[in-house]
Amino acid sequence: MFSEIMMLLELNYLGAIIFVLFFCVWCWQSLEQTYGCKLCIGPCTTRGEGFYYDAFYGDLGLNEDHFKQIEAAAKKAVDEKQPFERIEVTREQALEMFSDNQFKVEIIKDLPVDKTITVYRCGPLVDLCRGPHIPNTSFAKAFSCLKASSAYWRGNKDRESLQRVYGISYPDQKRLKEYKAMLEEAKKYDHRELTKKQELFFFHPLSPGSCFFLPHGARVCNKLLEFIRSQYWKRGYEEVWSPNMYNMQLWETSGHAANYKENMFVFEVEKQEFGLKPMNCPGHCLIFDHRVRSYRELPLRLADFGVLHRNEASGALTGLTRVRRFQQDDAHIFCRESQIKEEVKAALSFISYTYKIFGFTFDLKLSTRPEKYLGDLETWEKAESSLAEALNEFGKPWEINEGDGAFYGPKIDISVSDAMRRKFQCATLQLDFQLPARFNLSYSAEDETKRERPVMIHRAILGSVERMFAILLEHYKGKWPFWLSPRQAIVCPVSDKSLTYALQVRDRIHDAGFYVDVDTTDRTINKKVREAQLAQYNYILVVGEKEVANGQVAVRVRDNNDSTVKSVEELLKDFKDAVEAFR
Amino acid sequence: MFSEIMMLLELNYLGAIIFVLFFCVWCWQSLEQTYGCKLCIGPCTTRGEGFYYDAFYGDLGLNEDHFKQIEAAAKKAVDEKQPFERIEVTREQALEMFSDNQFKVEIIKDLPVDKTITVYRCGPLVDLCRGPHIPNTSFAKAFSCLKASSAYWRGNKDRESLQRVYGISYPDQKRLKEYKAMLEEAKKYDHRELTKKQELFFFHPLSPGSCFFLPHGARVCNKLLEFIRSQYWKRGYEEVWSPNMYNMQLWETSGHAANYKENMFVFEVEKQEFGLKPMNCPGHCLIFDHRVRSYRELPLRLADFGVLHRNEASGALTGLTRVRRFQQDDAHIFCRESQIKEEVKAALSFISYTYKIFGFTFDLKLSTRPEKYLGDLETWEKAESSLAEALNEFGKPWEINEGDGAFYGPKIDISVSDAMRRKFQCATLQLDFQLPARFNLSYSAEDETKRERPVMIHRAILGSVERMFAILLEHYKGKWPFWLSPRQAIVCPVSDKSLTYALQVRDRIHDAGFYVDVDTTDRTINKKVREAQLAQYNYILVVGEKEVANGQVAVRVRDNNDSTVKSVEELLKDFKDAVEAFR
Repeated sequence: MFSEIMMLLELNYLGAIIFVLFFCVWCWQSLEQTYGCKLCIGPCTTRGEGFYYDAFYGDLGLNEDHFKQIEAAAKKAVDEKQPFERIEVTREQALEMFSDNQFKVEIIKDLPVDKTITVYRCGPLVDLCRGPHIPNTSFAKAFSCLKASSAYWRGNKDRESLQRVYGISYPDQKRLKEYKAMLEEAKKYDHRELTKKQELFFFHPLSPGSCFFLPHGARVCNKLLEFIRSQYWKRGYEEVWSPNMYNMQLWETSGHAANYKENMFVFEVEKQEFGLKPMNCPGHCLIFDHRVRSYRELPLRLADFGVLHRNEASGALTGLTRVRRFQQDDAHIFCRESQIKEEVKAALSFISYTYKIFGFTFDLKLSTRPEKYLGDLETWEKAESSLAEALNEFGKPWEINEGDGAFYGPKIDISVSDAMRRKFQCATLQLDFQLPARFNLSYSAEDETKRERPVMIHRAILGSVERMFAILLEHYKGKWPFWLSPRQAIVCPVSDKSLTYALQVRDRIHDAGFYVDVDTTDRTINKKVREAQLAQYNYILVVGEKEVANGQVAVRVRDNNDSTVKSVEELLKDFKDAVEAFR
Repeated sequence: MFSEIMMLLELNYLGAIIFVLFFCVWCWQSLEQTYGCKLCIGPCTTRGEGFYYDAFYGDLGLNEDHFKQIEAAAKKAVDEKQPFERIEVTREQALEMFSDNQFKVEIIKDLPVDKTITVYRCGPLVDLCRGPHIPNTSFAKAFSCLKASSAYWRGNKDRESLQRVYGISYPDQKRLKEYKAMLEEAKKYDHRELTKKQELFFFHPLSPGSCFFLPHGARVCNKLLEFIRSQYWKRGYEEVWSPNMYNMQLWETSGHAANYKENMFVFEVEKQEFGLKPMNCPGHCLIFDHRVRSYRELPLRLADFGVLHRNEASGALTGLTRVRRFQQDDAHIFCRESQIKEEVKAALSFISYTYKIFGFTFDLKLSTRPEKYLGDLETWEKAESSLAEALNEFGKPWEINEGDGAFYGPKIDISVSDAMRRKFQCATLQLDFQLPARFNLSYSAEDETKRERPVMIHRAILGSVERMFAILLEHYKGKWPFWLSPRQAIVCPVSDKSLTYALQVRDRIHDAGFYVDVDTTDRTINKKVREAQLAQYNYILVVGEKEVANGQVAVRVRDNNDSTVKSVEELLKDFKDAVEAFR
């Protein structure tokens, strides 16, 4: 039997095909005939929350009424316990079967010639799918449509415009209800909502996908970078600053021109094509290569917080989670094969240390050699076993993700879960044999006549600072922990009589290096405190005539109505302890 | 009589016309006839070091031999004490006079119709010039050609390609000799040379004008930003992060599209034109404008270290002093008119504080309303008198630079002098009435029904971080002061017996937050120390068996061969004091 979590995940994965079925029954009955709706692709979402299906509807815009129709069709199919039937077909049969759907035909034509093609039949529908599936539709008793959005066929904005419908399924209604309650909760703490109250960032139509971080947002971003820098100091990384635009020749060498150009901003300078960097790695190869290197310099860990740009369609941009401009806590480790294991272990420990501070849990998977790969088998095997050893020695349980590595090397997938049990991929940990070969990188070995090729490890802990900012903001539900908080304290004078003293207290706290404000308005003290609570100040410091006389402050910690009286020295000591304590 | 400095400056300024004369005599005699050489423009350089003349030579490439000819012609003209004669001419006469030189004709046609046109006659030459001049050529007894480079007519790469010859003049040979010695010295400490020894940065042909800062260079850059940030904390600035690309609509509003587009990198995104930001100010206007503002929030000081790009011709790029990509310690102060004086004084004090730390001296000039200006006279007068009052209260002597302000507001020009007495413009301090008007910015005044327009103060202390890096590197002749140094200390074990201890010492110093290395090679201790001196480590720490036994280090300070023995605690205290002391 599956463990409970596995079962849920599995259901959502397999639920995708059920969804297709419900969906198609309905489409077939109403849409396909009327509007010529054509199904495209329907995977489960990468965040492991349900699934979606892209379909071509012509001019029809989907709405809540359509969702109800889909859900009704789903209920009917569940009640009927429709079994899933796997059928192997030849390429010709498949093409014949889907001849009226140009999208499926395109998919089939793109499959490798020697690939076994499978279709699944369930109720009135047959769909192209590699499976596997649950035995029958009754396994997914609870089902719901979540939302609709627009998409392009194959993510290409020059291709057909599609509509994407998201759904989710659970084995019972109770869990679906819990999930929907979590969604409501998440909506309340959506980072795009929270920024309105906290004035952290905003977007402007004159620069879609590029965030403006307001002073309080920039405080958090800078604190995150400062934290990572302090860890770099301890963990032997060296920061570099590298250019933001490069001649396309660089991107040809790196392979981006062939595989990634449509995601880049490209322009002409003095009749040569240049591209804004979407990644730092090729620039770091130039740094490695700018002079002769020796094995004594390895491992060389180059870190870069450079500004990256990716040309996302404006329609696909979403808050801070999908942007055009972002910065990463990016680093590339150039090392010898024999150093891979230790470097990977150190990177895992860096990730673990950081995520513990954030209050995230995380899972590890080792993605191994895919069907199409570059380089020789022996190197792959050595690398995979280095990664496996590193994972074993690191000690946290991990799974294998057979064949899911990148074509240029195996990788470790790290998925974090936030306070609302949502999953994200933030950290990166990938081996790369290809980039060092493409840039013809080498170092002199102990025998100086011999040149060896370094391995590159791509790694990031936060991933995109912008995206991590959003995840943390939602994860903390807007209540930043003290060390990261852009509003650590506020001094609220009870009346004009304590205003001068309040300003003095503010200055002392500011001079000690903490973010502190003072409420100089003439509102009542209750109003001041209430507003400070809403603004999520970690400490609210009330000062009245008694505090002035004793040189003290009445301290309220956020979300706690009790108050204790302290001297400013004691308070500053608490603050310092709170900052130290997080590590 | 002029003061000595004024006389030198004046001579270099006026020397320009003499240069033209020598130059023209020679041109006229040899080049004009043979190759059709045509004079274009010949001002003194902005750094106040000599002058240049741009001329069109067709296919002729100038070389050292031509320089000798020019210098010989100059000597002859000086010996002849040729007087300068000022002649006023009408537009028609001027056009007639220069009818065989299309460049001069273009200049004359661009002059305002009511402008008095003057030409100067001296020896065989008549040239267009507004003057004034020294009485005769004997005032500039020492003269030298410095170098030649290429240039475009009116700086426009689509116009004629010209050659620029630089020259300098002094009242006597002694000073010319001193100047040339300084040039040799400067060449030795050119930042492009020093980086080869110190591994600070490099440029790569795949990204002309965008610097790669290597680890040791990035350490200095980060220290500079850290310093500025620590001052922002004390001086009430707030950092923001803003986008790097904007729809051209923004640049139309700001005026950059009309006046600066050829200096921008522009590209198309989803059929709209976007431009990489060459300046932060328009983005900061969007930040100011993103919600309703109140007078209570002013002055609002927004700081931004964002990456800027300017499209410089690849031929014009020079090391770190002329680049395509750079970051500034940029800030924009939004304030009320009544706050200008205090804000300007505070900015002057910030500049003064910083330059004192760097060991720069600086001069101040107030540039006032130019002939062509925007806005009303009354506002200009108020602003100029605010600046003048701020300068007076600041207390350092200053001069007036009549009519040299920007069209959008008056400014204070700050020119710094480095250790080699070379002058640079780094800091910026400008008032701007126009951008707030163009963006229709406003805040609510005490009477809430009334909206007022803020004034913007553009200010930078370092200016471009890249350029300041180069200036400091040359100014310090590669010997970074301790607080800014990327190589603060190195531990040199006398032999293998003290290696373990050397590593422990290194770790303790590193943990205390200083840049420290250890020399683990098996060379002799003398060689290690010599190499450490060449690498410009501030402290060289020798550890032998005696130091191991006593838990001490033998300390040599850079450029001092004496050595004192200290405990590591004492040493760390010295380090901390050295970092504190610089402020």
